[in-house]
Parts: sequence; C-alpha cells; structure tokens
Amino acid sequence: MVDWHEITGGVTAPRGYKAAGIKAGLKPSGLADLALILSDVEAIAAGVFTTSYVRAACVDYCRQRLQTKPTARAILCNAGQANAATGSQGWLDALESAMAIAHALNIKSESVLLASTGVIGERIPLQKLKAAIPQLVAALSETGSDAAANAILTTDLVPKSIALETTIGDRPVRMGGIAKGSGMIHPNMATMLAFITCDAAVSPHLWQEMLTRAAQRSFNSITVDGDTSTNDSLIALANGQSRTPAIMEVGEEAKKLEAMLTAVCQHLAKAIARDGEGATCLIEVQVTGAPDEQAARQIAKTIAGSSLVKSAVFGRDPNWGRIAAATGRAGVPFEQGNLRIQLGDFVMMENGQPLPFDRAAANEYLKKAAAGAYLREDTVLICVSVGDGHGSATAWGCDLSYDYVKINAEYTT
Amino acid sequence: MVDWHEITGGVTAPRGYKAAGIKAGLKPSGLADLALILSDVEAIAAGVFTTSYVRAACVDYCRQRLQTKPTARAILCNAGQANAATGSQGWLDALESAMAIAHALNIKSESVLLASTGVIGERIPLQKLKAAIPQLVAALSETGSDAAANAILTTDLVPKSIALETTIGDRPVRMGGIAKGSGMIHPNMATMLAFITCDAAVSPHLWQEMLTRAAQRSFNSITVDGDTSTNDSLIALANGQSRTPAIMEVGEEAKKLEAMLTAVCQHLAKAIARDGEGATCLIEVQVTGAPDEQAARQIAKTIAGSSLVKSAVFGRDPNWGRIAAATGRAGVPFEQGNLRIQLGDFVMMENGQPLPFDRAAANEYLKKAAAGAYLREDTVLICVSVGDGHGSATAWGCDLSYDYVKINAEYTT
Repeated sequence: MVDWHEITGGVTAPRGYKAAGIKAGLKPSGLADLALILSDVEAIAAGVFTTSYVRAACVDYCRQRLQTKPTARAILCNAGQANAATGSQGWLDALESAMAIAHALNIKSESVLLASTGVIGERIPLQKLKAAIPQLVAALSETGSDAAANAILTTDLVPKSIALETTIGDRPVRMGGIAKGSGMIHPNMATMLAFITCDAAVSPHLWQEMLTRAAQRSFNSITVDGDTSTNDSLIALANGQSRTPAIMEVGEEAKKLEAMLTAVCQHLAKAIARDGEGATCLIEVQVTGAPDEQAARQIAKTIAGSSLVKSAVFGRDPNWGRIAAATGRAGVPFEQGNLRIQLGDFVMMENGQPLPFDRAAANEYLKKAAAGAYLREDTVLICVSVGDGHGSATAWGCDLSYDYVKINAEYTT
Repeated sequence: MVDWHEITGGVTAPRGYKAAGIKAGLKPSGLADLALILSDVEAIAAGVFTTSYVRAACVDYCRQRLQTKPTARAILCNAGQANAATGSQGWLDALESAMAIAHALNIKSESVLLASTGVIGERIPLQKLKAAIPQLVAALSETGSDAAANAILTTDLVPKSIALETTIGDRPVRMGGIAKGSGMIHPNMATMLAFITCDAAVSPHLWQEMLTRAAQRSFNSITVDGDTSTNDSLIALANGQSRTPAIMEVGEEAKKLEAMLTAVCQHLAKAIARDGEGATCLIEVQVTGAPDEQAARQIAKTIAGSSLVKSAVFGRDPNWGRIAAATGRAGVPFEQGNLRIQLGDFVMMENGQPLPFDRAAANEYLKKAAAGAYLREDTVLICVSVGDGHGSATAWGCDLSYDYVKINAEYTT
C-alpha cells in the first residue's frame, strides 16, 4: 500500500512548520548543538519515551506535558549534555529552558516540548543556552530542517532525515522526520531522538496509537549495542495545515496515514542502525514462522544484537553457527528440527540439519553486501525461520568494529 | 563460614579420581583437545545445562543420562568442534563417542557423560577421536588435572583450576574444579564448561540442589558478551571416597559442603570472566538495596554486561553516567532518588544527585585497579544501591577491548 513518494525538506516539508539549528557553544567541539522545531499553530502531539527507570529530566517533562494536553507548538533540543542523572537541579534546568524559549517565541511554556542528548550526568550550561535563544529564533525558517537535523547529532557521522507526501481527500498531506542515534541504541519504547512533523488533521488519540505501533515496527526493532538510553524520545506533531479532512476514526485514511508514519519511522530507524557507532554496514534480520509478531521480533532483535554475530559480520565471516546460537537463546521456544538459516542467498541450515555451502562464496557475499553491491545498499541480509507459525518481524542492527570500542573507550576523558 | 583451605591438584585432588588431556588432532592448531576425568567408583552426578533452544548433542545426551540415573564414572570432553547445530548426525556422533570411551575403560556407556566446545555447526572428527582413545586412557593419572584443564580450552588464554579441602566428621573432604570460558559467555543455567569433583558422600537430590544454587551465585552471575552458549555444561561428581559420613539431609554439614561448592564455582566463574575474550581486567559489580536477590543479580548482570560500561572501563574512563543508564534499563523498578553509585572509593551519585569528584583521581583508580594494584587482583569494583530492600548480589564481567572484536571477527575464516 505504498501510495506516497519521497520529497525534500525533512521536518519543514509539511505546511506550517519552521526549524533552526545553531552553534550555542554547548558542545566542547564547537559544532552545532541547539535545534528548534516550531509549528505555526498548536499541533496534535504524540510521544513515545524510554522505559528506563533512570530518565532524563526532559523525558519526565514531556510525559507530564503530554498527559496534561496532547498538543504542542515547539520542540527544543540540545546536544552535548543529556540532562539525565542530574537530580533535582536537572529538573529545574528543564523548566527554565522551556520558559526561556516560550518567552522568546511569545507562546505558552506548556506548548514547548524538550529533548536532550549527550553525556549523562552533565547539566545543560543554561547561561549559554539562554544567550543563544535570540539567534536560534531568528534562524527559524521553512527550509531549516537540515540545520536542525545537524544540531541534534552527537557521535553520528551523518544526519538522518526523510519527507514523504501522499494525498488524503485529493489534497496533499506531507510528513517529515529527523533523528539521531549512534550509541546507547537499544530502544525499548522509542529511539534516542526522533522528531516527526505532519500537516494532516488527526485525532490526538488515533495519532498516539499510530505512533506507538509505528515505533514498535521501527525504532523498537533496531539495536546498536543493547544499551537502552535514558533519553529515548520520539515526538510526532500533526498541525492540520494541509487543510485535509480530519481523520477522527479508524478507516482507509487512518490506515494510509499510519502506513506513511511507519515508513518514515522505519527510514529513520534504519538510518540510525546503519550509522551505529563504528558500524561498517547495516544488518537486516528477517524472522518467520514464529508463534506471533512479538516472538518473531524478539528473535530478530536478539540475532541483530548478538556481539558474536556482529563481530562475524565485521570480519565478513559466514559463521552461521552464531546465528543458530543467538536464535536458541532468544527466549522463544521452538523445535531445533524446524530451524532454517539463510545468509543472503546461501541456505546454511534446513530442518535443523547443517547444509554444505561454498564458504568462499559466502565470504564474498558478505564483502559485497556490506559494500552496497546489491539492491539494498550496504545491507547484510539474514533470514531465519523457526517453524510454521504466522509470526514474522524484521529487526535491524550493525556490525561491531574496533571503532565502536575506540569511540566508547574515549568518550568523556 | 570459611573453614576450608586451598590445596593443589584440581579435579584430581579429591580421592579416587584420575584425569588426562592429550592432543588428538581435533583442533586445527594442533594443541591439546581431548580430556577425560574418571572416578574409580560410580559417583553421584549432578548437572546444570544451557537453557538455549539450540543445544549441543552432548547437552541433550547428558540431560537424558542424568534423568535416568544420577551417577557417572567418566566425563569425556573434546575441544575444537561444538557438535551443536549438527542435526541428527551430531546425536549419533555423541552416542558413538560415549560407547567408544566406555569400551576402552571397560565400563557401561551409561556411566559416561560428554561435553564439547568449539565451532558451532561442526561435527567431531570421530575417526581421529576414536584413534586417540587408547592414548587418552593410557595417560590417565592422579596428577592429570592440569593436562585435562588445558585440553578443554579454546580461545582461553589461561587454564582455570581450583581445589579446596575441609573436614567433615574429622576426616578431610576435598573438592576440585576445572573450567573453560572466554567467548559466548552469558550463562543462563551454567557456564560454558566446568567440571567439579568431590570425594564426599552425599545424596543425589541434595547434590543437585546444592549445584543449582551454587551455579546461580557463580556461573549465572558472570557475563562476557551476552551470548548464551549452546553447550553450557556444569557437571559435578561426588564419589564418597573420602569415607566421611554420608550427607543425606539439610544441616550443618550440608551447609558446609554447599558453601565450599559455591566457593569452587565462584573461583572458576571469576576466572572465566577475567579471561573473557580480549579482556584486560575483571569488573565486579555489587548491588544492594534491591527487593530480592534475583532483582539485585539482574541489575548487577546488566551493568557488568553493558557494552558502554565495558568500553569505558577499557578506556579507564570514570563515565558513571553509563552505570546509571544500565541500572535504569535492567528491568527492576526503583526510585531515581534512591540511586547511589560508587566506583572504587569514589562516590559519584548519592540519593539520585550527582556528586563532584576528582576525575583525574578516578581515572588513576581505574588504571591501578585494572593493573592489580589493590587487594583484589586486576579488579575494578562498582557498587550500586537502589533503595533499602534486603536483596543484594554480585556479578562479574570484563572490559570490552579491540581484541574482543579482533578475536571474533576472525574466528572461523
């Protein structure tokens, strides 16, 4: 049911949104570190956040705001300091940031949502942040998505952005998203940070339901290092500026909007996995034959997250036994005699029996797939079937390289 | 209640045991790869095995044998091939190995237990194994423990061995153990491979109960890379050759025996974590204040297994925010305001508030602790408290280095 097409513009592609990203001096590196997304009017807002018991102040702040009223006009995001594990002072810093940006935009502080990313345990330098706000607001523009996408990055190598357009009631509806990821990526309710804008009109309840399901099939299906972050936040705005008929109940148009939302989320989620810290390629794991979708996802995510599978892919080593081992320990019961394992086009186990295969050719497949020689760019494909159940799911991860260790051994010192 | 002392001799320290380890040509490297432990008489046998749904043939074999009768005389172990994911042929290979060694030892094949370690998906070269059996049996000796401990290794750098002695009814009782670990270490019921001998007389039911509890507090409390193996096997024999009174029910003597069994298991488990693939030091995580021991262990194991915490320790980086993040995602509910984090002597968070600390001094602590400058040799100590519950537990892991990636990117090719 793909009846949309890709357009340019990221989160400013939908009508009625502006964005900005500037250097506020928050990051020691001096790179861009402060982003703002603004809707011209109050937008329906939905969010999915980390399930960690140690949460950033901005996560608690957004949850409270969205529980009180499911709308918002602005999302302010800083990079450099996570404002997590910062105690009661971190909470006050979050409140003060929201009030400062609300004042500058002349909106209510209840209409501001917040996100932070960076070093856990470090407070946001509030004086620098407040001093930079006039420049940030002045930089707001209808082509500001790329600047915002850049300003939310930390160890990411590339910005992640997408925009799609479809029609509802013969009028165009657009959706855009930006995200950041890289390390501490094993989302349990959402990803590190992803912001989605949409100009459709949709009921708050439906919009939240759609976002929760889409998160499950995208951000909650990727893993870089198994470490769920304290700051995971996925926020989606829908401001109705497309002037299309409001989607108030389940039906064809709600389905279409959710499918597009899922596509946007999956694009951003895969971009995060591909750009995992130190990664040289994307790993896609398709699992079929499980009892249900949840069980299939659990197996797929276990394989995609296995350090041994990830190291083997980095070594371009068709060591399928590690795929079998990860499948077995995923916590989903199945008969060994039903196991089927395929790497690219190479079937390595069928009905639980190992099959002979050309090891040199499989090594060649891994080299070429990781380098992007096939249709799916830089993607190594692993297919596993565990029985004849109807549950299937796909998860995405990346390989484990020397650079992952290097990046994370030298992060704060 | 430590009223035992360490002695030499490993699994041949207890009375009535012989062991051997030889080069049977099973490993491509040509190193020792076949081990045998033999009790002079039928011994009470208990076992704890992997919970993976993809299991090695030897695991299924041992489970069946021990269900039928809880005694054994011999443990045969090969290194080089895991005989896991080898289908029905792997099962036949296991049966044939057991029959071959039983024939050479002139015992019933029902008295033989089996273990394998090495590449998953590869069969044991049976002709080589059978050809080597006469040499293996000839090599059996009452000082053969070190040879056996060497012959069960794969990527391990050092053999793991221990022996303890206590008294029961005024007579000496001895217990010895050998183990191997290194990679694919995240035991869910036992470790990769550990064999324990004891000359006490004890009821089969008590012995199995003691082993299950000891495994929980030792092998099930370590992690190297989060990958539970298909071959995890912990087997303990008690042959009664100490001629001490039989321990038939719960009481002081059963307690003493279980405490010694736990000490042997913990020694071997820590040795496995310290020698984790690519590791430069041991990480000990002590968690207190949790609702119960199981919850405490879950948090401790999550911290010890976090790729980001492990990378930080490798970089000697006092990045305590990652400890907070791992604590939060462990799945155990707690109030952020109760969190306390200590690294060595440095308290970094108290009552959920971050405390100032001397970063350079903490970095120095990590360097020295990892190099073995303090009482605990090469151990970095992390203490976390999450509340005022009575649950406490300790877990052990190791740091994540470039060499882990190197070893695992180049394992089969």
